[in-house]
Amino acid sequence: MRGDPMLTGHPSTMADDYQLNVTTMLRHAARSFPETEIVYRDDRGAWQRSNYAVEYGRVAQMAHALSGLGVAPGDVVGVLDWNSRRHLELYFALPGLAATHLQLNIKLSREDLAYVVEHSGAQWVVVDESLLPLAEGIQDAENIKGWIIASDTPGGRTETSLPNPVYLEDLMIDESDSYDWEEIEESSAAYAGYTTGTTGRPKGIFYSHRSVCVHSWALHTALSFTHRDCLMPVTPMFHAMTWGFLHAAVLAGSKVVMPGQYAASDVGPLAEALVDEGVTVSNGSPAIWTPILEYFRARAEPVDLSGLRVVVAGSEPALALMKGFKEAAGADIVHGYGASETSPIVAINWLRKRSLDDMAEADWWDLKRSQGLPSAGTDIKIMSLDGIEQPHDGVSAGEVYYKGPYITQEYFDRPEAADAFEDGWWRSGDVGVIDPNGYLKLTDRLKDVIKSGGEWISSIDMENAILDNPAVAEAAVIGVPDEKWDERPVAYVVAREGNTVDADTVRTTLSTRFAKWQLPDRVVVVDELPRTSVGKLNKKKLRSDDAV
Amino acid sequence: MRGDPMLTGHPSTMADDYQLNVTTMLRHAARSFPETEIVYRDDRGAWQRSNYAVEYGRVAQMAHALSGLGVAPGDVVGVLDWNSRRHLELYFALPGLAATHLQLNIKLSREDLAYVVEHSGAQWVVVDESLLPLAEGIQDAENIKGWIIASDTPGGRTETSLPNPVYLEDLMIDESDSYDWEEIEESSAAYAGYTTGTTGRPKGIFYSHRSVCVHSWALHTALSFTHRDCLMPVTPMFHAMTWGFLHAAVLAGSKVVMPGQYAASDVGPLAEALVDEGVTVSNGSPAIWTPILEYFRARAEPVDLSGLRVVVAGSEPALALMKGFKEAAGADIVHGYGASETSPIVAINWLRKRSLDDMAEADWWDLKRSQGLPSAGTDIKIMSLDGIEQPHDGVSAGEVYYKGPYITQEYFDRPEAADAFEDGWWRSGDVGVIDPNGYLKLTDRLKDVIKSGGEWISSIDMENAILDNPAVAEAAVIGVPDEKWDERPVAYVVAREGNTVDADTVRTTLSTRFAKWQLPDRVVVVDELPRTSVGKLNKKKLRSDDAV
Repeated sequence: MRGDPMLTGHPSTMADDYQLNVTTMLRHAARSFPETEIVYRDDRGAWQRSNYAVEYGRVAQMAHALSGLGVAPGDVVGVLDWNSRRHLELYFALPGLAATHLQLNIKLSREDLAYVVEHSGAQWVVVDESLLPLAEGIQDAENIKGWIIASDTPGGRTETSLPNPVYLEDLMIDESDSYDWEEIEESSAAYAGYTTGTTGRPKGIFYSHRSVCVHSWALHTALSFTHRDCLMPVTPMFHAMTWGFLHAAVLAGSKVVMPGQYAASDVGPLAEALVDEGVTVSNGSPAIWTPILEYFRARAEPVDLSGLRVVVAGSEPALALMKGFKEAAGADIVHGYGASETSPIVAINWLRKRSLDDMAEADWWDLKRSQGLPSAGTDIKIMSLDGIEQPHDGVSAGEVYYKGPYITQEYFDRPEAADAFEDGWWRSGDVGVIDPNGYLKLTDRLKDVIKSGGEWISSIDMENAILDNPAVAEAAVIGVPDEKWDERPVAYVVAREGNTVDADTVRTTLSTRFAKWQLPDRVVVVDELPRTSVGKLNKKKLRSDDAV
Repeated sequence: MRGDPMLTGHPSTMADDYQLNVTTMLRHAARSFPETEIVYRDDRGAWQRSNYAVEYGRVAQMAHALSGLGVAPGDVVGVLDWNSRRHLELYFALPGLAATHLQLNIKLSREDLAYVVEHSGAQWVVVDESLLPLAEGIQDAENIKGWIIASDTPGGRTETSLPNPVYLEDLMIDESDSYDWEEIEESSAAYAGYTTGTTGRPKGIFYSHRSVCVHSWALHTALSFTHRDCLMPVTPMFHAMTWGFLHAAVLAGSKVVMPGQYAASDVGPLAEALVDEGVTVSNGSPAIWTPILEYFRARAEPVDLSGLRVVVAGSEPALALMKGFKEAAGADIVHGYGASETSPIVAINWLRKRSLDDMAEADWWDLKRSQGLPSAGTDIKIMSLDGIEQPHDGVSAGEVYYKGPYITQEYFDRPEAADAFEDGWWRSGDVGVIDPNGYLKLTDRLKDVIKSGGEWISSIDMENAILDNPAVAEAAVIGVPDEKWDERPVAYVVAREGNTVDADTVRTTLSTRFAKWQLPDRVVVVDELPRTSVGKLNKKKLRSDDAV
């Protein structure tokens, strides 16, 4: 892969050929924390209790069962499942066989799901019984040798059209609960996942045993993970393996709560589990933590969740959510940054820098909206469009590049996407700054930033400013081609129901925050904005529509 | 090195060839924590203040200076220094050149020091001006190309007989404060140190960039190291690089206090620095922390050092020291285990296990005397003399073996010592147990344990029990050969001044704690016990004297 020169020094006497393997994490937990609980909801929604000793035995049984089916080193095994106990067990059973655990995103279209299964060369798919329709939709995938159904009911409860399905628990039941794990070359892929962008087919990332181990330690540092912690992963496990939090928890010997299947429309079980189980670490999106906050506010008995840190790294948590959780439950909503390409956590904004101890509280809340400090062991740099590294002055914006032992250096079998990588750096496509205190703040997507007269205008900053007007429901700012200035901003605005907005009001609102040359050339009031199939704002369509 | 078979899986897309290099740690700290302070005492004992930005610049200057002298990749450079700022800088400047920073133990005999310098093939020695006599004592070492003197005074203050000495600071002063660090193959030796046993010459251990990086992350987990912490290393840096604490601190971006030269006879400056600088992590031996406790007890104004955790891993801290610190200063004295062969921290007893939250306070204090829980990522097993792995029952004793990514797998160029290693495990020579909660407790040295009738009697347990009699000043229990029982215990006892003891009293004291068959066959009252040159009890001599 690498052509760079490298220095070599005196030989060491250390066990440098001891391979970093993910299965050793669970072995450590089972040896030193056998009694530590793994609490989970079964597939009927009932809470059950297990522990590391039991889980280590079940993972052994699972490995015997899978290996008996024919799962072999180098095989890719797709997994369609919720945040279930069995999904956690597969995290260790599959890589322990030197197979690759491929996360299948249950939100993908049938077409994309079939693409992922075929492109990855998956030979097997493990599917939770409740997700059978997704598997049935892709049963024609040519490379699949076998379908493995995960169910808490022997033989399952549901009819399926899948050819020759086998039932995982039934295969496990008579197997030995000990397995002689072989050492695995550490750059072997333990996991894989596919990223979903707004353009093109999902792109595959194969995570090595090494990268997962190092990322887990880095997460310990970032969040002070210890065996006193209790993790409940709320981010779906198919999103970059719930951001690596489960691996960090197992490596530390932390208690784990697996919430199974859940929905933002019914957060009661999640919220009560936070209280009952003493959860101290969690993650997820504002879409689920906002209703949880509402649930706690409406709860008869007040809760004290101080010590709980909830990482929200997908999209920026609103200040109201952060302050709300602190007030209502004493918990910290922690902003951070992660992408599938970065394992994913590479920046986190939890513990305030010592040098900022005297910062005014309001400024600190504002700073908490940034993505935070780089993880120990990750390089982050800000590059201007002409390839100059930018200073950490909080002003000089550029594309954010990442490099390190758990950063992707290529997409699997997608040579046409090679321009996302440069000299070992991953070009994130995000625009951001680093302030003099070292805090990373993302300001825009590179494709959405408006390049005008050699300067950049952040479309997101401008959208947020427009949204300060309570009469505005939605806003989108795009750059449109301009002969003289290269690009000029144009704003699309949707009025809140029962309100009206006009271009002048919008421009007036903006003029207090933006220089005159930055103000949009046009403000267009529309009834709705174009969105992608997963509900994201579709600026690409907006730009092409605008050009017509 | 390894002949074991290894599985290989699907290739990953991660940057698995990104080399773990120690210099990147300092680069991260300088980038994200430029303002974080490095406080140090200069060589006249005055406190000075620097920060990571300044230190990173000075390390660059140092690398230019050393490289200018001719220090090249693969070179071994000995360092004779206190816990000084310059010593910390050398930690990064030397490995950054792909040279090996060789710790020279300033307590070694001239003969052993010369052996270490010659056996390691050191080409250069950096010596603090105050330690010149040590360097002058070994100036005939054939392989040394140059002597480099570290002093805060340009040109130094002291005459020296070293041939053609150069002054490090003088070489640095005109050098650039930026250096283009090259990537170094991660199994290159960044550091080396020599262990001093009671028998034979010191044995060399060469620590790789990889092992140091992984150990640093593991220490973060063990001690929840973050950028909020402030480390003052009290263990000398020539003892396994002050147990890796400085690397962990730099990787986290923690504040660091370098105490320079200090002595147990004058702990005032150390004790006041703990208070003034807000130290939260430290380490060292009871020999220095006992007078620090006495200092705080005698201090006019009481201190609150809650949040401070002091790791004592060399020898077991007395319960009185642990309780005393908690009462006098709110600080935790934390027991742990480390050896030069293990980088060194592989077990630590800091945060109580969740499952022991209901343990009675007295039992918890007793448990705190054990070495604690294995570090995340280290394998520990207890092996009987006939090679059977022992259960974690707190009773089944055996030799303690260690394996992992930062454990030594051989001594440098000492093939005759190969029996200390077995299938990738290091045999520590310690006897211990692991209890059902996973806590490691060392009970004896293998060579000192008494093997009687197929059972083991811990010489240390018996010595401690004898010392419960206040009339006893010192005690040593050895095993002497016995035809029927293999070995039988014999106790040597020294009475406290002004007291008398006799064999019967000793046997009576012991009979409440030991079974009848375990009681010593003979109790010998003597005036003094034989000791080694560094003051350790010399049981080898006691055994040979006893046999006469």
